[in-house]
Amino acid sequence: MFRIKCIVAYDGSNYQGFQKQKNYCTIQEQLETVLAKITKDSIIVHASGRTDAHVHALGQVFHFDTHLDISENSWKKAINGLLPFDIHIKSVEIVSNEFHSRFHAHSKHYRYLINLGEYNPFKEKYELQLNSKIEISLFENVKSIFIGTHDFRNFCSNKEYEVKNFVRTIYSIKVMKQDDIIQIDFFGNGFMRYMIRMLVGTMLAVARQKITMEEVKSMLDTTLVKPTKYNASPNGLYLVEVFYENEVQK
Amino acid sequence: MFRIKCIVAYDGSNYQGFQKQKNYCTIQEQLETVLAKITKDSIIVHASGRTDAHVHALGQVFHFDTHLDISENSWKKAINGLLPFDIHIKSVEIVSNEFHSRFHAHSKHYRYLINLGEYNPFKEKYELQLNSKIEISLFENVKSIFIGTHDFRNFCSNKEYEVKNFVRTIYSIKVMKQDDIIQIDFFGNGFMRYMIRMLVGTMLAVARQKITMEEVKSMLDTTLVKPTKYNASPNGLYLVEVFYENEVQK
Repeated sequence: MFRIKCIVAYDGSNYQGFQKQKNYCTIQEQLETVLAKITKDSIIVHASGRTDAHVHALGQVFHFDTHLDISENSWKKAINGLLPFDIHIKSVEIVSNEFHSRFHAHSKHYRYLINLGEYNPFKEKYELQLNSKIEISLFENVKSIFIGTHDFRNFCSNKEYEVKNFVRTIYSIKVMKQDDIIQIDFFGNGFMRYMIRMLVGTMLAVARQKITMEEVKSMLDTTLVKPTKYNASPNGLYLVEVFYENEVQK
Repeated sequence: MFRIKCIVAYDGSNYQGFQKQKNYCTIQEQLETVLAKITKDSIIVHASGRTDAHVHALGQVFHFDTHLDISENSWKKAINGLLPFDIHIKSVEIVSNEFHSRFHAHSKHYRYLINLGEYNPFKEKYELQLNSKIEISLFENVKSIFIGTHDFRNFCSNKEYEVKNFVRTIYSIKVMKQDDIIQIDFFGNGFMRYMIRMLVGTMLAVARQKITMEEVKSMLDTTLVKPTKYNASPNGLYLVEVFYENEVQK
């Protein structure tokens, strides 16, 4: 049995997220369909985590097990030859059976893009089209509230309430502005459902002076359920990279 | 009666080109539908020229006539408020009744984008995904053959054969390469149907050593019908700007 690790990029616009669901088109379903064709076997794809409907990936990671013995390069060509135009395998690696794309992922990098300038008809699916000015200095300041280890229960989907552990560590949030585009890079040990979209939504709400930094602080590290109202569109969100400890691979 | 000049950007991916056609979704149809709603009148949109199916525009120009007397800014807001997400009016100007978007256009700027690097699942509709190496120096050289005033009958759709005048002037072709992306900018007094796609297709064929520069030269400025076989995909093509003589406007 071989364990195959793949890095995949996808334009999430046409998909109801990564995870397979009945009656919806998903990335997992596309991958499993293609892998079944190649291996003539039923294949289960295990990703580093889900991405929501319409969220994009530049470097999602998944693995699967198979009896088929072909080279890494042959895997890449075979899978890409059958995938739809908006999903592309960037790399394939035959790894040790110890490797697990979800359990061994120790941190992730997500990116969010916001256009502050004139509406761009080419980017509606790829950037939040804000169509209004924001106070950049407030936007920059609010990020410091989120960095570090916090209870983020008020910044995730209420479907996460089954999870019970709401503590996550954000290592870094980098905000860059070029022309009218704001790029926010989040690095952390894990993110719950809607978490980045809610952090971005909240950062924008502070920048637009709809809520204060004090209010945001009062929603962090509390067991009081007081979820943020602000959830930015999935269209601007990208899973950029998943990080593993080197010794786990191969 | 007021004559209104608009500059419009559109993602052509979902449209069968600019010009209205029965049973197809076109940019003209979208614009006329929106203008009819605003003016409660039947409106005919006159563009600087057609763009083909799936070709994009950053600055297409059109005009229309109306009795409705509202400000330029109100026009822009009203039209954009009703247009689909992939079409956006960038500017509106109330012009003299002398102005004509097609007859007074004295030159145009088109752009073509080619990705020489790894296939990009986000850009299939926005760049030619070449997936192979090319000889950049040959690519750069071949452009000099096309610059100037030439009979381009072998570099246009055979539907243009009704036209009878195949002479066009290309003022400039600029080739830029950044990382893996080649950007080619064409400036000329007019381009026939398929002309830029055929010029790009032919440039690529020379760069991939499928034909020689001598063969290309023999197809220009001749009355012999010997059309190029090479027609690059519409997905990488953008109408960037239409130029008018200043005195014609207002």
